[in-house]
Amino acid sequence: MAAQIIEVILLVTFSLYIILHANASDPDPIQDFCIPNNEPFLPCKPLSEVTPQDFIFSGIKSPGNFSEIGFSGISVTPTNFPSLNTLGISFSRADLKLGGVNVPHLHPRATEIAYVVRGSIYSGFIDSTNRVFAKVIEAGEVMVYPRGLVHFQMNVGRYPATIIASFNSQNPGIIRIPNALFGSGVNDILLEKAFGMTIEQISSIRKKFISKEIVS
Amino acid sequence: MAAQIIEVILLVTFSLYIILHANASDPDPIQDFCIPNNEPFLPCKPLSEVTPQDFIFSGIKSPGNFSEIGFSGISVTPTNFPSLNTLGISFSRADLKLGGVNVPHLHPRATEIAYVVRGSIYSGFIDSTNRVFAKVIEAGEVMVYPRGLVHFQMNVGRYPATIIASFNSQNPGIIRIPNALFGSGVNDILLEKAFGMTIEQISSIRKKFISKEIVS
Amino acid sequence: MAAQIIEVILLVTFSLYIILHANASDPDPIQDFCIPNNEPFLPCKPLSEVTPQDFIFSGIKSPGNFSEIGFSGISVTPTNFPSLNTLGISFSRADLKLGGVNVPHLHPRATEIAYVVRGSIYSGFIDSTNRVFAKVIEAGEVMVYPRGLVHFQMNVGRYPATIIASFNSQNPGIIRIPNALFGSGVNDILLEKAFGMTIEQISSIRKKFISKEIVS
Amino acid sequence: MAAQIIEVILLVTFSLYIILHANASDPDPIQDFCIPNNEPFLPCKPLSEVTPQDFIFSGIKSPGNFSEIGFSGISVTPTNFPSLNTLGISFSRADLKLGGVNVPHLHPRATEIAYVVRGSIYSGFIDSTNRVFAKVIEAGEVMVYPRGLVHFQMNVGRYPATIIASFNSQNPGIIRIPNALFGSGVNDILLEKAFGMTIEQISSIRKKFISKEIVS
Amino acid sequence: MAAQIIEVILLVTFSLYIILHANASDPDPIQDFCIPNNEPFLPCKPLSEVTPQDFIFSGIKSPGNFSEIGFSGISVTPTNFPSLNTLGISFSRADLKLGGVNVPHLHPRATEIAYVVRGSIYSGFIDSTNRVFAKVIEAGEVMVYPRGLVHFQMNVGRYPATIIASFNSQNPGIIRIPNALFGSGVNDILLEKAFGMTIEQISSIRKKFISKEIVS
Amino acid sequence: MAAQIIEVILLVTFSLYIILHANASDPDPIQDFCIPNNEPFLPCKPLSEVTPQDFIFSGIKSPGNFSEIGFSGISVTPTNFPSLNTLGISFSRADLKLGGVNVPHLHPRATEIAYVVRGSIYSGFIDSTNRVFAKVIEAGEVMVYPRGLVHFQMNVGRYPATIIASFNSQNPGIIRIPNALFGSGVNDILLEKAFGMTIEQISSIRKKFISKEIVS
Repeated sequence: MAAQIIEVILLVTFSLYIILHANASDPDPIQDFCIPNNEPFLPCKPLSEVTPQDFIFSGIKSPGNFSEIGFSGISVTPTNFPSLNTLGISFSRADLKLGGVNVPHLHPRATEIAYVVRGSIYSGFIDSTNRVFAKVIEAGEVMVYPRGLVHFQMNVGRYPATIIASFNSQNPGIIRIPNALFGSGVNDILLEKAFGMTIEQISSIRKKFISKEIVS
Repeated sequence: MAAQIIEVILLVTFSLYIILHANASDPDPIQDFCIPNNEPFLPCKPLSEVTPQDFIFSGIKSPGNFSEIGFSGISVTPTNFPSLNTLGISFSRADLKLGGVNVPHLHPRATEIAYVVRGSIYSGFIDSTNRVFAKVIEAGEVMVYPRGLVHFQMNVGRYPATIIASFNSQNPGIIRIPNALFGSGVNDILLEKAFGMTIEQISSIRKKFISKEIVS
Repeated sequence: MAAQIIEVILLVTFSLYIILHANASDPDPIQDFCIPNNEPFLPCKPLSEVTPQDFIFSGIKSPGNFSEIGFSGISVTPTNFPSLNTLGISFSRADLKLGGVNVPHLHPRATEIAYVVRGSIYSGFIDSTNRVFAKVIEAGEVMVYPRGLVHFQMNVGRYPATIIASFNSQNPGIIRIPNALFGSGVNDILLEKAFGMTIEQISSIRKKFISKEIVS
Repeated sequence: MAAQIIEVILLVTFSLYIILHANASDPDPIQDFCIPNNEPFLPCKPLSEVTPQDFIFSGIKSPGNFSEIGFSGISVTPTNFPSLNTLGISFSRADLKLGGVNVPHLHPRATEIAYVVRGSIYSGFIDSTNRVFAKVIEAGEVMVYPRGLVHFQMNVGRYPATIIASFNSQNPGIIRIPNALFGSGVNDILLEKAFGMTIEQISSIRKKFISKEIVS
Repeated sequence: MAAQIIEVILLVTFSLYIILHANASDPDPIQDFCIPNNEPFLPCKPLSEVTPQDFIFSGIKSPGNFSEIGFSGISVTPTNFPSLNTLGISFSRADLKLGGVNVPHLHPRATEIAYVVRGSIYSGFIDSTNRVFAKVIEAGEVMVYPRGLVHFQMNVGRYPATIIASFNSQNPGIIRIPNALFGSGVNDILLEKAFGMTIEQISSIRKKFISKEIVS
Repeated sequence: MAAQIIEVILLVTFSLYIILHANASDPDPIQDFCIPNNEPFLPCKPLSEVTPQDFIFSGIKSPGNFSEIGFSGISVTPTNFPSLNTLGISFSRADLKLGGVNVPHLHPRATEIAYVVRGSIYSGFIDSTNRVFAKVIEAGEVMVYPRGLVHFQMNVGRYPATIIASFNSQNPGIIRIPNALFGSGVNDILLEKAFGMTIEQISSIRKKFISKEIVS
């Protein structure tokens, strides 16, 4: 029996943990902080167990794994840095090999500022009148990408490049345009008409992305 | 002299008008309403001049002009319906000819609900894990597209289709993906790498969109 | 025993479901969507179980039941369309028979836009200086009612009328003034003084509303 | 000429003053404070001219004028206490003579807390399910009325009563239900149907309120 | 067994109660009210059990306990007045003996208005340019302290003084500067440099505050 | 005459510029961006004049001027990087010489994340229960300081240290505690009682801060 009770407790714990992530909202916190808790029945870690280490993140000292096109990104949100929960802010580290590209993407829930730690990066965004604002930025410079606008980066220097970015949401989300359109199973005819491409062109692009089942 | 003063007045008026559009923010209005004003020195139309007609919009009784791919859209925001200013809501009418397509796009500042007035529409969106949620919806049905996510519509019925959509922002914005990426002058090499397309494919797609100068 | 555990699970499930409705807040979602879940311990439906149908609402294809004064209303909020949860928007369908009336009411938590699908409707609202802004609107027209202001509609055409309305809150709430004042048990003397009516007049009006017990 | 320029300046000044009131929004200020300015071209009073007195309000030491039903109210918003501008809070003083009534009303943009300075007050509100929550409260007690809900107060004690109320908006607004419905020119037939009253009853109630022209 | 189930239920109940406090956010409620519940599995008290008394607070009729420097404060938040939950407002009572001091402090999440019920109070705040705005205020006067700014009060009259304050957050928080700096274990050398004090001076001040362990 | 008109124009321009800074609010922008404008009558720079450079900040490549205690800080807000206007985010660079101290301070309107570019820093904050959360952080690590809480940094390494910080407000504000309390003219007796210091101690500390006139 005790085991069963414990099982219930663990399940409840897990669900409370999820609630905190799913349900909190970005604006105006109503407590100093609320670190999601792994112990049963205490959605915020008890204050007595909170330590300074809870507010420190050490996981972006080095780059993550690189993609085929020379990009590595580590997003830091309450999922991997729980104390960000309810605080309305998050960050990430991006690394680009020589010629590496951070594909056109957008964050549906945040404005981003990108600080170049090292390297030379062609960086820009497209506004809602379809104008590109792009330029090469160097180490020590900062670029801002307004909320929800498509933006991109490419290492155009002669060395690897590193960026530290911040977002004004605890979970900005990321929509990578090539993957969203060609790696997701959007209807072929629709894409054909929308992009003025042939079905063959679309198929050829699709092969480069992990095709997922259409949900219907 | 009087003329010069009038000129100043008109310029000031215009700038105040702009301020209202540029500066107001979506959340929590602090007056019943504030209709931007064309008269000098009164950013909100004086209450004595406000009429019921100010709160009524009659410009979506019929479709707008259709694009080559059979789509017509009329966005209604404070620009064409000033009383929406500060109220945190806006709307639009979309019409699709047989086979017409509303290309993959997103609204950076709002969730959308789309009510099908008539027709059969293949409608969907892509979430941030690259899953498509798409299905045919019929007259009288409603679909919701969460804020900042890419969505699309295609008339798959045998008759013209009409949609009335609402947004929870006075100015949701619209980013049409094909135009943003291929009609804007984003760097070729970056697109080549991001989409795995050849330069020839990119050029061929670009021709279909009104190419704009790169701003740099 | 298993049955008892299941009971616990079901109770917890239900309570988590309630939390999602009770606790989420309108502004700025922090995930793409969060569909409240009927399964135990998962407040948001797991992504693998979410289908396109979850984002489609088919329950306003026809009117609801009509009141004695010829009005029918169907409110669509997360209660009947769970995917609206956290998205900050909701909608409703209203139908009015010939001469039918949507009584003076207000939504404490949202601005409303009303799109006339068919019919001729005398529609208006009262601002906080006690001015009425009212006019007859026709099929294809839209009227906006600012947040928290009293508004009303009456079918003044020769055919049934239908309205689709949208709100910039997932749960705008509705306060029907006649029912709130005369169907709720507000103190007689207070109403007498407030409205300058006699006790007899108040009693006579009250009979038309389902009288509820005073809570005290 | 100088005079004309000054006229322009004064007009611009006035309009800037209005903008500050009309355009600022309740949430999250972005400066310490911004006191609207009467001097030309400086929408916020220059910091060098701001004095401690700007943050102190002395106008609710005694009651305002009493209505026929024994009520006096003084609302304090940026209009009479400019430093509240952008701070998201405001307050009011209400006085009730013996038997005096603060008629059923609501604040479309704020929750209210009412602190009884002296007296015995029958105080309550009606929720959106038409339930009344009402009770007599005494000096030193506090009642909360949720945003947008109809509430009321009546002095049921043997002495005059005084209330200090606070609101979580710089301009909560006030809709007095009797005045909004019967003092505003809402269509007779609509009221007749909505309240189940006769035209005669409506006319009789109307006479007690200052009838305003219908705007149409 | 039943007992064990009950234990689980109680634990879950408690944790749900905590969630409500921890997780709700100040802006825009999405229901009329949500009173945290002590019964299992119902985070909001069921409407049928809510009474008028739930919305009335009677605990600030008299002062709380006084500190050594003649100050007594009672904060009223959802912790002691649950119906404030989700309503975005809270309040407090402060009493100051002759010469009593409310030490320099700030509320990280709210603007405050302070109404002097009785007495003469030297009251002020310091803005972010290090200017003090301070003055003596008397019974019936109100002072506003913008969000996050350090403020203070001292009874400079000849009688005890009482203040009723309101905040535009359900949980404004309070940071008392002397306690935060000298009662918390901040590093000595850092304080020495920051304040230009000697270690001896710091130690001497520290003795007056309850020293807490450094968490590291 | 023309000159006078131009003068008016310049004055108006300046005031519009101020409005944008004073009046915009952090949450939910309603346009892609709005760069305050130095030209007359156009509060947002016309889109045709906006360049990529507008979104790039190059002023934190090297440290600013150092204080006596070895600290240099450069705040980047719309004042020096206008395109941040309405975007809800800002940033800063801090440098600390060996042993340098960033004195206890707080940002009344934002949460902060601090990324250590180089060096070893003793970094911490004090919560509203007067607990210190402090620890040495190294290059590549990030610490988060919740909104409105007092925090501090000290270089405890053997090399100069550099931090890049981000804030979730376009203008977080900064209150340096030592300056606010001892460099501002707060009443001596109040400080004496609040800190338990002698008047002599207070005077001695005061001398180290630029004393400003009391405003009264």
